[in-house]
Amino acid sequence: MRPSGRSASQVRPITITRHFTAHAEGSVLVEFGDTKVICTASVEESVPRWLKGKGQGWVTAEYGMLPRATHSRNRREAASGKQGGRTLEIQRLIARSLRAAVDLEVLGEQMITVDCDVIQADGGTRTASITGAMVALTDAIQVMMEKGLLKKNPLKTTIAAVSVGIYQGTPVCDLDYAEDSSAETDMNVIMNREGKIIEIQGTAEGEAFSTEELMAMLSLAKDGIAEIINIQQAALES
Amino acid sequence: MRPSGRSASQVRPITITRHFTAHAEGSVLVEFGDTKVICTASVEESVPRWLKGKGQGWVTAEYGMLPRATHSRNRREAASGKQGGRTLEIQRLIARSLRAAVDLEVLGEQMITVDCDVIQADGGTRTASITGAMVALTDAIQVMMEKGLLKKNPLKTTIAAVSVGIYQGTPVCDLDYAEDSSAETDMNVIMNREGKIIEIQGTAEGEAFSTEELMAMLSLAKDGIAEIINIQQAALES
Amino acid sequence: MRPSGRSASQVRPITITRHFTAHAEGSVLVEFGDTKVICTASVEESVPRWLKGKGQGWVTAEYGMLPRATHSRNRREAASGKQGGRTLEIQRLIARSLRAAVDLEVLGEQMITVDCDVIQADGGTRTASITGAMVALTDAIQVMMEKGLLKKNPLKTTIAAVSVGIYQGTPVCDLDYAEDSSAETDMNVIMNREGKIIEIQGTAEGEAFSTEELMAMLSLAKDGIAEIINIQQAALES
Amino acid sequence: MRPSGRSASQVRPITITRHFTAHAEGSVLVEFGDTKVICTASVEESVPRWLKGKGQGWVTAEYGMLPRATHSRNRREAASGKQGGRTLEIQRLIARSLRAAVDLEVLGEQMITVDCDVIQADGGTRTASITGAMVALTDAIQVMMEKGLLKKNPLKTTIAAVSVGIYQGTPVCDLDYAEDSSAETDMNVIMNREGKIIEIQGTAEGEAFSTEELMAMLSLAKDGIAEIINIQQAALES
Amino acid sequence: MRPSGRSASQVRPITITRHFTAHAEGSVLVEFGDTKVICTASVEESVPRWLKGKGQGWVTAEYGMLPRATHSRNRREAASGKQGGRTLEIQRLIARSLRAAVDLEVLGEQMITVDCDVIQADGGTRTASITGAMVALTDAIQVMMEKGLLKKNPLKTTIAAVSVGIYQGTPVCDLDYAEDSSAETDMNVIMNREGKIIEIQGTAEGEAFSTEELMAMLSLAKDGIAEIINIQQAALES
Amino acid sequence: MRPSGRSASQVRPITITRHFTAHAEGSVLVEFGDTKVICTASVEESVPRWLKGKGQGWVTAEYGMLPRATHSRNRREAASGKQGGRTLEIQRLIARSLRAAVDLEVLGEQMITVDCDVIQADGGTRTASITGAMVALTDAIQVMMEKGLLKKNPLKTTIAAVSVGIYQGTPVCDLDYAEDSSAETDMNVIMNREGKIIEIQGTAEGEAFSTEELMAMLSLAKDGIAEIINIQQAALES
Repeated sequence: MRPSGRSASQVRPITITRHFTAHAEGSVLVEFGDTKVICTASVEESVPRWLKGKGQGWVTAEYGMLPRATHSRNRREAASGKQGGRTLEIQRLIARSLRAAVDLEVLGEQMITVDCDVIQADGGTRTASITGAMVALTDAIQVMMEKGLLKKNPLKTTIAAVSVGIYQGTPVCDLDYAEDSSAETDMNVIMNREGKIIEIQGTAEGEAFSTEELMAMLSLAKDGIAEIINIQQAALES
Repeated sequence: MRPSGRSASQVRPITITRHFTAHAEGSVLVEFGDTKVICTASVEESVPRWLKGKGQGWVTAEYGMLPRATHSRNRREAASGKQGGRTLEIQRLIARSLRAAVDLEVLGEQMITVDCDVIQADGGTRTASITGAMVALTDAIQVMMEKGLLKKNPLKTTIAAVSVGIYQGTPVCDLDYAEDSSAETDMNVIMNREGKIIEIQGTAEGEAFSTEELMAMLSLAKDGIAEIINIQQAALES
Repeated sequence: MRPSGRSASQVRPITITRHFTAHAEGSVLVEFGDTKVICTASVEESVPRWLKGKGQGWVTAEYGMLPRATHSRNRREAASGKQGGRTLEIQRLIARSLRAAVDLEVLGEQMITVDCDVIQADGGTRTASITGAMVALTDAIQVMMEKGLLKKNPLKTTIAAVSVGIYQGTPVCDLDYAEDSSAETDMNVIMNREGKIIEIQGTAEGEAFSTEELMAMLSLAKDGIAEIINIQQAALES
Repeated sequence: MRPSGRSASQVRPITITRHFTAHAEGSVLVEFGDTKVICTASVEESVPRWLKGKGQGWVTAEYGMLPRATHSRNRREAASGKQGGRTLEIQRLIARSLRAAVDLEVLGEQMITVDCDVIQADGGTRTASITGAMVALTDAIQVMMEKGLLKKNPLKTTIAAVSVGIYQGTPVCDLDYAEDSSAETDMNVIMNREGKIIEIQGTAEGEAFSTEELMAMLSLAKDGIAEIINIQQAALES
Repeated sequence: MRPSGRSASQVRPITITRHFTAHAEGSVLVEFGDTKVICTASVEESVPRWLKGKGQGWVTAEYGMLPRATHSRNRREAASGKQGGRTLEIQRLIARSLRAAVDLEVLGEQMITVDCDVIQADGGTRTASITGAMVALTDAIQVMMEKGLLKKNPLKTTIAAVSVGIYQGTPVCDLDYAEDSSAETDMNVIMNREGKIIEIQGTAEGEAFSTEELMAMLSLAKDGIAEIINIQQAALES
Repeated sequence: MRPSGRSASQVRPITITRHFTAHAEGSVLVEFGDTKVICTASVEESVPRWLKGKGQGWVTAEYGMLPRATHSRNRREAASGKQGGRTLEIQRLIARSLRAAVDLEVLGEQMITVDCDVIQADGGTRTASITGAMVALTDAIQVMMEKGLLKKNPLKTTIAAVSVGIYQGTPVCDLDYAEDSSAETDMNVIMNREGKIIEIQGTAEGEAFSTEELMAMLSLAKDGIAEIINIQQAALES
């Protein structure tokens, strides 16, 4: 029995609120149950120096948490003078995943930065961030099309993410904090709408896991992501 | 005529949403028109090292802005490796103002940290932050009373803040970004519910100003703050 | 009775020594009683990158204290790896105040940096710094005129600063450390020679203060600054 | 055909030289073909502050590359003032993997730090690091046993790592730089000697990959790791 | 012919002003011609953590330059976020030299920090700093004796420093900036009052130098330092 | 009697292994007894910004130690966020010494960076680094000649370094850690093949030393360096 009473394959209620803040080209509040992340996509008509003159664009991401998004207050990274290893790892993952959805040559010498800021955390902040970031990115690209900054849509596919894991011996989908903090295995899966894998990261927190367990988790992830992509699509059409 | 169509003494619509996020002892979303700030108050049952054994508590504050809270994206302070001068100045002001409302000896050897994170900026982020922070602080103290961490309420008064300025020759109250960015003079005033001054910071951006103009601005601030303190009170009673 | 035996409106003995060090275009040792600050103005024939090509110049300031300028030794900011919030706040104030005296378009694409380094502190280091910086800036501009770097004098006015406060219930002018450390209210006022306000920053350290008290302090500041501007003038003419 | 002429399942020649440097409790030079990493394990008879009094030990890791371990010189991280995101990500992975082999309660309040420093890079530095680190850790634990710092061996299993990927459409094992830099998919697998998964991290660099491709890669990894564990064992017995 | 008209062995006019600032236990303005350094010695009744309980004291030093002590303005180290290599090298040299004059066990668990801040530079700032620091240290120790913090004087000797070099083929003593910037060889010598060497650092800036040239420079240094030690002594007796 | 049983003038067994790692233009493993340093020379076809357009090249150096090169583990400088004073001092010395061997104008607008990374330390790491760096630099210049990046060889001479000191009252050459940690005096000498001095740095760790002792040490250094230059030469010819 999961602490939330959900079935093993059941994802939390997911809501995606577009146009959440006023200034960004794409701005989304994504909620996976009690996990809430603001994702904004910002367009810049130039690229980082190392890409200048190469005829392609760039998509990058940054991740942060408000100090009291969690049960006890964490030190503000701006005050401690650097982003921690976990933060860097997550923002690298978000950026890599988003780039898998974009044809950077079609984007041209322009850059899109997606900021994912967690305002409330209850497990799965990185998968919620990726899911929301994809919608914010889509909106920003739409704005670029309307402004004439793009002649052709650079999106090759759409992506979404979900966490899966083994909790008390059973594979489950979309772990919340209560599950995540005591799961034997925790795995984040990012897939595209064709059901192919963009990234998979699985860690044995307690017990090492078998290939069969991996397969069971992957199967749950596939179904969960398909459902999440439908929710993304519905939000974009609303 | 003000860009927003408001009268010279009219503050923007102000809303205060309590219990905005789940984990903090006090959590408020404060909105001054399109300026939106999340203020959370976190309680810690110890004090910084330099205060240990002195029989008093501490109230401090930190301030931040999401990178795309503004018209164009600002660099994330956690990524640039330090908080800028403006950020430090604002968070020192918030903390100092809040401490003017608290009897630190009654608080005992406990610390309250108020985080003010701007998610959307349209002028007046520091005065909105102080106003929201006061409510979050009040809620956190209430939680401490209920948990038995305090025998007596350490609040001596309540405070609120508003900006005033001279826009196109006329003193006005609660400047939005359109006014703020072209005002001749910009002044932030923090007062308590007794109508006394906690802090006043006035800067001539364009023309130097006279004592008479200072008085006119101060008078607007007094009325504005009285109104804002009523809004705080109503929020706390709801 | 003030610890120094001064009357409520009496400023400390103020001396301004020009050409204090050899290399800077403007170099001043300013003394407000036992507070001693070296102010040097350095001219650069270019502007920061963000101002390039805008046809205007820039005036900026930096502030520091020798580690043992104070009663007990403070950690050297260069060794701790960053300037503290107080330092940043003060140098932003100095720079803003000086810019209020200069027509940046007449200055052209040139920059003047004023360094204020406190070698001995006894209260009022920021107001002494501003007062001395104004003289160093004036000397540097004179050098630029003589070198042909300026066709027209960009100075619009002259400014000076003084602190006022409420000490044991009485408004007093130019607080020394003994007063400053126990004052109920501390206010820094910067005015130009026309008697108009450039900046006002008042903080209730202990008790909140009334509009009447603000007025009384402002009146003391006005007289004090008029006297200090005379001392600046005399130094410049010697 | 692989650039190196190896078959799809063939790992590079792997050598493990123990006692490579003189001072560390465990010191290994591990070579996966032209990738060479010095792994040293250092024992400390205390734990980090956050673990004090909890009756358990800690195993951690740090990773670095000499500036010219690679084709062109990289900036020295000590000079740039911080470890990059890739470095932090790798050292977190190494540490997590090693902890999966150790019973931290049996270790008691002692800490082992494994430093992995790449002196020459040709792809697969993180898997070579983990493989060498496991041997250095084993040697350090042996020293602790001999010195009487441990009553019981805290090793629960042994682990090793290998990279797999899809190169020109074919799944291959233990990619060198020539393959790694143009592979469609890159996956790092860490397993224990029981053939169970400790960590799996797969990234689609070019094309997204299917579950079937994931299985094919995982199967290659299993065989490769079994072989590598034999090489570790032989080194430990020599 | 030296630019200053001095003879080869002639040091610049040297003045040592004691009690230069008010708060430090020792405070000296030392001038070697146009090089001017404020040296303050601060006493702390404790030692750094790594020395606690070892029954000995510590003497350390820090060095800095005001940004416009030199011909053109240097970036403030506090603003750039770190002390440069030259600064660290100099302050390590000053501290090491001073410790050669002190019996740290007699000092007991107390620390003296000497700050050397250059307010005007014209060559030889490190040798002027060491010379002035020795006097400030002596005054601070005298204060400690008077306060009863020391039962016995921990000074074993007194030290002073001078630079020597080869300028246009001729060995000269106490180089000023005009000489220093074009000398073939630059050597700093620190000796005690017994004429023995504490530290010698010689660098060939242009041509490598012979043992004979080294001897000639060392001989000049010996005479110069003897003269400087007399000046220190006279200052301490005044 | 020296701990190692060597005679007073005897250097440790010195080996120089060229082409130690694969990618660098020059790569050397230098061993002075148990002190082992990897020295790599990297060529860049441009110069630092401050040298652009001046028609000359640059030679620089960086120094590091693996955390467990020493008896107990040192904190990794990349993790602590800055290079320590000792590190900066050593790398400045290495770079200065190498530049004394190179005609920077003949080098043209190109830069060579020599990295010296200590993998095992037993005293004398800076002199071993300089000695190995000279060979790596020579190899890199040879590669530049072969690639046509240089028309003429910019080497003016060759340099080497050795430490000398006074151990238990006797001058000795090439101190190992056992001697170094208890020597009264420690001196590093860098000379060229003509037997002239490039740099000399002598420090009295315990007792101050006389001119006669300096001469005795210098004489030992001269012989030691002559021998080391022969070893360098033999390595370059092999």
